[in-house]
Amino acid sequence: MVKSRFMGIAALVLLNLSAVSLMAAELPKASAERLEKRIIDLSQYGRNADGGVDRVAFSDANVEGHKFMVGLMKASGLEVSVDPAGNIIGKRPGKNPNLPPILFGSHIDSVPGGGNYDGDVGVMAALEVMDLLNSANIVTDHPLEMMVFTAEESSMIGSRSFTGDLSERTIKEFTTPGTMRTDGLDRLGGDHTKLQQAARKTPIHAFVELHIEQGGILESKKLNIGIVEGIVGISTWPITVEGFANHAGTTPMPGRRDALVAASKLIVAINDIATNMEGRQVATVGTIKAFPGASNVIPGRVEFSLQIRDLDAGKIQHLFEVIQQAAKPIEKEMDVTVSFGPSGTPSPALTDPAVRDIIEQSAKELGLSYQHMQSGAGHDAQHMAEITPTGMIFVPSRGGISHSPNEYSSPEDMANGANVLLHTILKLDQTKFAEE
Amino acid sequence: MVKSRFMGIAALVLLNLSAVSLMAAELPKASAERLEKRIIDLSQYGRNADGGVDRVAFSDANVEGHKFMVGLMKASGLEVSVDPAGNIIGKRPGKNPNLPPILFGSHIDSVPGGGNYDGDVGVMAALEVMDLLNSANIVTDHPLEMMVFTAEESSMIGSRSFTGDLSERTIKEFTTPGTMRTDGLDRLGGDHTKLQQAARKTPIHAFVELHIEQGGILESKKLNIGIVEGIVGISTWPITVEGFANHAGTTPMPGRRDALVAASKLIVAINDIATNMEGRQVATVGTIKAFPGASNVIPGRVEFSLQIRDLDAGKIQHLFEVIQQAAKPIEKEMDVTVSFGPSGTPSPALTDPAVRDIIEQSAKELGLSYQHMQSGAGHDAQHMAEITPTGMIFVPSRGGISHSPNEYSSPEDMANGANVLLHTILKLDQTKFAEE
Repeated sequence: MVKSRFMGIAALVLLNLSAVSLMAAELPKASAERLEKRIIDLSQYGRNADGGVDRVAFSDANVEGHKFMVGLMKASGLEVSVDPAGNIIGKRPGKNPNLPPILFGSHIDSVPGGGNYDGDVGVMAALEVMDLLNSANIVTDHPLEMMVFTAEESSMIGSRSFTGDLSERTIKEFTTPGTMRTDGLDRLGGDHTKLQQAARKTPIHAFVELHIEQGGILESKKLNIGIVEGIVGISTWPITVEGFANHAGTTPMPGRRDALVAASKLIVAINDIATNMEGRQVATVGTIKAFPGASNVIPGRVEFSLQIRDLDAGKIQHLFEVIQQAAKPIEKEMDVTVSFGPSGTPSPALTDPAVRDIIEQSAKELGLSYQHMQSGAGHDAQHMAEITPTGMIFVPSRGGISHSPNEYSSPEDMANGANVLLHTILKLDQTKFAEE
Repeated sequence: MVKSRFMGIAALVLLNLSAVSLMAAELPKASAERLEKRIIDLSQYGRNADGGVDRVAFSDANVEGHKFMVGLMKASGLEVSVDPAGNIIGKRPGKNPNLPPILFGSHIDSVPGGGNYDGDVGVMAALEVMDLLNSANIVTDHPLEMMVFTAEESSMIGSRSFTGDLSERTIKEFTTPGTMRTDGLDRLGGDHTKLQQAARKTPIHAFVELHIEQGGILESKKLNIGIVEGIVGISTWPITVEGFANHAGTTPMPGRRDALVAASKLIVAINDIATNMEGRQVATVGTIKAFPGASNVIPGRVEFSLQIRDLDAGKIQHLFEVIQQAAKPIEKEMDVTVSFGPSGTPSPALTDPAVRDIIEQSAKELGLSYQHMQSGAGHDAQHMAEITPTGMIFVPSRGGISHSPNEYSSPEDMANGANVLLHTILKLDQTKFAEE
């Protein structure tokens, strides 16, 4: 599937939308209480002392949370199965079994010391949509499938298996007998020996993921909904500054070749450059190590990471080159050398313009405020975008905080998101994409 | 012993010196070849792949090197004993056994990955002085004692035991049965159960230590000898910068509370302040740690060390206060808090003015260039200065490098130093200090 093919079908989509819009007012509304209760129920699996959650992929908490979800999904009448990658798939039949299914969902695994909203909100909103359809006795034309992807926070192994985007190396890591990951996959109900068979071979009509924003834009602008234009590409470089380690007592200040002072200058420069350049790019130095690392020795070498994210791979490269240039005068002034290691190729993932239009239309008819925005974080949706028209709906994160026990989205914000998801699914159901 | 008492005795010292000066021309000269050979012989104990030495206190290499020294000292006719702290003491009788002895020496233990000159040169120069006295059949009035102190690079346990400057805690560390240090002390021929008995109770006439400069001042000024005014006091503070950890992708650049960017600004400021302030103070940030320490998370907390050294404790405090002031605008600009932990009290140690005069006189009569200077590094002499008039002689370090396999002092520089040491010892032998 090539993204550009959607550019020409806007008219077709809008034609179909008008029919759905008529029934928008009659659609059931998401229950903020039910959403919140389910978030709280799920939070018990891996709850830690900080009130956050340690539900790292393949952990006991992850396995228990997984079972809990299977139970909930069955209770909502879905036909539940677990694929070889441990992804939970909850099917709801459509009127026409020959039509490709519409998929939506997210993940329930967390980072270590994570919060109770990242991933969880998208999963519970997907379940809420199924419950709303049930309560209103709505049967879509297309079959629907709710997805709970495996290990989003650990290499996105679930969505990458599902979309067939696994490298040889990753497959080996997850299928080498006796490793934690292999064992973990099987404990989730997957089958590490059949990992490659998790790839979906049959067509998918569309995929939509609802997720917390994990940033502070919606909250600060008092907006209800973010319509994701795409998921940024990420490049991470190791940077090494080489100076000269020497005695911290006997080496006078002038003439020192202090690698940490030089690295500090570069870190400040990186922050200034990324902040002052026009655009939404971000650049972060998250790790740093000084060698030899003793309080009485001038650091002779410092290693740190530089991570740049943007929706445009060219912009990432440009920013990186500006930073490389900024290192040159520091090298000269401090008599050090700065070297940049290799980085992976950034692969920004764009969402589908037609799906974005549908999400916008849904927000409008629900009277919700919204803006188009990029996702600075990676999501399962970026892999799904490779195989099907994909959209993402963001709901506000309090204080822009995520990957933290302080993560929070209000029940109202979650319900708004679930309502947009419901409308979006129903509109997608009435949309015929050009290639189908 | 109070340092100020020496201020009034310069005349007395000079009176005695004139007699010694007469014989200066007839004194034997140190052998650069013998010094270099002994340095090379000693270097085999703990030699590493880099050509440096790992002769860390209490290691096998340290124990073997210790035995090697005992053998050499005995071969030079010294009466060798090892005290409970593992210090090797090599006695050479004087004409008057009732006079307090003159002590001189250094250490042979190294830092991990150290060089072959730090400590070793002072020990071999002391032995050279004994050999020169033997070859010229010179018997001093005062008894002489050559010292090889234990563990200079590991808490200076040898000189601190010798001068009775051990804390309760240190004693416990070194006398707790079953620990590496206790065992190590005993392997060096010491006796951990009698550590407190290592403190010398009887008077010492004076102490002199020859050492490599470990800095680049003598080399860059093409000088032969450094006359040490004192050993700097050292204060080390832990500094913590608290910002806010957040997602490196979803948090826009403006509004980040990046603790590492803030810490970097402070590290640059510390370097600028210490460099631009008049004086010889040094300030070093040698360790740094960012939390949580992942390339995809903005650091929420950074911890680093600040070490300041100067010969004047007041100057250390002043520099620290200027740095504290410099942190305030960074706190405001970056919305972070900077806190400074407690530091130990710096205790600069001054050498004895009379001994400095004698070293200067010796350099002059040998036709050697010299300058008075501070020691930026700690030495056993700083503890000896608490109990006896103490002096230090520096010889040049190539490139100012130390604590490194690249440490080097030329045979000529070592021989110049040994000659100054010989003349100094003989002049001290003829000097009557006021309190004696």
